[in-house]
Amino acid sequence: MMNRWKITIEYDGTDYCGWQRQNDGVPSIQQSIETAIHKFCGQDITVTAAGRTDAGVHAYGQIAHFDLDYGDRDLNGFDLAKAINAHLRPQPIAIIHATIVDDEFHARFTAKNKLYRYRIVTRSAPPIHDINHVWHMKYALDVDAMKQAARHLLGHHDFSSFRDSQCQAKSPMRTLDHIHITEKQYDRFGGQEIWIELEAQSFLHHQCRNIAGTLVDVGKEKTTPDDVKMILEAKDRTKAGMTAPASGLSIVHIDYTS
Amino acid sequence: MMNRWKITIEYDGTDYCGWQRQNDGVPSIQQSIETAIHKFCGQDITVTAAGRTDAGVHAYGQIAHFDLDYGDRDLNGFDLAKAINAHLRPQPIAIIHATIVDDEFHARFTAKNKLYRYRIVTRSAPPIHDINHVWHMKYALDVDAMKQAARHLLGHHDFSSFRDSQCQAKSPMRTLDHIHITEKQYDRFGGQEIWIELEAQSFLHHQCRNIAGTLVDVGKEKTTPDDVKMILEAKDRTKAGMTAPASGLSIVHIDYTS
Repeated sequence: MMNRWKITIEYDGTDYCGWQRQNDGVPSIQQSIETAIHKFCGQDITVTAAGRTDAGVHAYGQIAHFDLDYGDRDLNGFDLAKAINAHLRPQPIAIIHATIVDDEFHARFTAKNKLYRYRIVTRSAPPIHDINHVWHMKYALDVDAMKQAARHLLGHHDFSSFRDSQCQAKSPMRTLDHIHITEKQYDRFGGQEIWIELEAQSFLHHQCRNIAGTLVDVGKEKTTPDDVKMILEAKDRTKAGMTAPASGLSIVHIDYTS
Repeated sequence: MMNRWKITIEYDGTDYCGWQRQNDGVPSIQQSIETAIHKFCGQDITVTAAGRTDAGVHAYGQIAHFDLDYGDRDLNGFDLAKAINAHLRPQPIAIIHATIVDDEFHARFTAKNKLYRYRIVTRSAPPIHDINHVWHMKYALDVDAMKQAARHLLGHHDFSSFRDSQCQAKSPMRTLDHIHITEKQYDRFGGQEIWIELEAQSFLHHQCRNIAGTLVDVGKEKTTPDDVKMILEAKDRTKAGMTAPASGLSIVHIDYTS
């Protein structure tokens, strides 16, 4: 009997070309999981993810689905995840949950809300425990200014200024439902850890990283919070900040309508 | 002019033989720092740490001291740390603070209190984001039972049951000032992250890891909280649990009298 499975995935994207299979020999997360499923059941299965993360981007709660005909044998989610994980080892990819869903479920198209997190650490010394998981800045950022700037991005807008030139979406219109900036102490000597959390049903290519790069310019006082309103209204990629490094970004959670 | 410097160090101990220089070709944290200091100023300096961590043990706040004659040139802590870090790169070791202290300061002998943290993650899937930083257990532990057991270890005792056979301390008597066990959610599917935090002026060799191994036996219900009182009173290493893996342990903070 054919079942549709929904899997929740963690991965460290550092040494991968991203979610999607490429033809350049660099391993992808998708290929690693498809290969592990093949080793487990001998079938060639295509796995579809909610968000096709870029090279170096991490996941705490990536969601994907695939269809598997396992005959009339019993298979529960715990055992399926365990079997795939056994074949993924020692790669830094783990299936942390697996469950059967309706055939209407689609990891990408039925996603209601995606939560991405961008992490920044500011201090002179390299943040060696998190080196591939944050954007390291040597000087403290003005987090209050970043929070003010972020308010201009909330809601339904044309996000052309934050859209990669390679973006294939039909429309630059997106609705940013939440943008939360939080700060905590990274060490005992004034180091900051700053999180920029962004929630939307869908994002343009590099939208999160381009927003992070632009907000960091505000944190550095290179631009003002009000400049970000003008940048948004300009609908011009060249007005916004740099694309922040992939290492700081993680897909954290995805909600579904059903 | 000769100054005594106190440095605060972070490191990922995974690929090191521990703090102390060994003759087996595996790099040590001590050697890496001494080499970086040599590259910075051309001097052969011996660096003395508060706690000589084992292979695989990490640091968020290791403390060390060394004496440096930098002539009559100005040198502040920020610049010293920055210079040493430049020569440590790309190794996972960072000097996060440096300051001049009195000549009476000794990283090991004037330490008033050391805080170690032992991290455990329980769930079926491997904790890939923390794989070399936790002890991974496949099943949930009874944290309340572990807390009850830990109470028996608090205070001044003969810790022979938790002392490595290679331990060179003159006395097995130690005072465990604090032992705190805390639990938080590791993922959205019931995974636990458990911290065992231990504070004392000094510890016996493997004392933290042997206590962690013994408390995990209680968490697994292999032994009861009251068994731990008997294990302590037996003063016999064979009665206690296994030495927990080094990967879960970190030196977090050290307090000094002055």
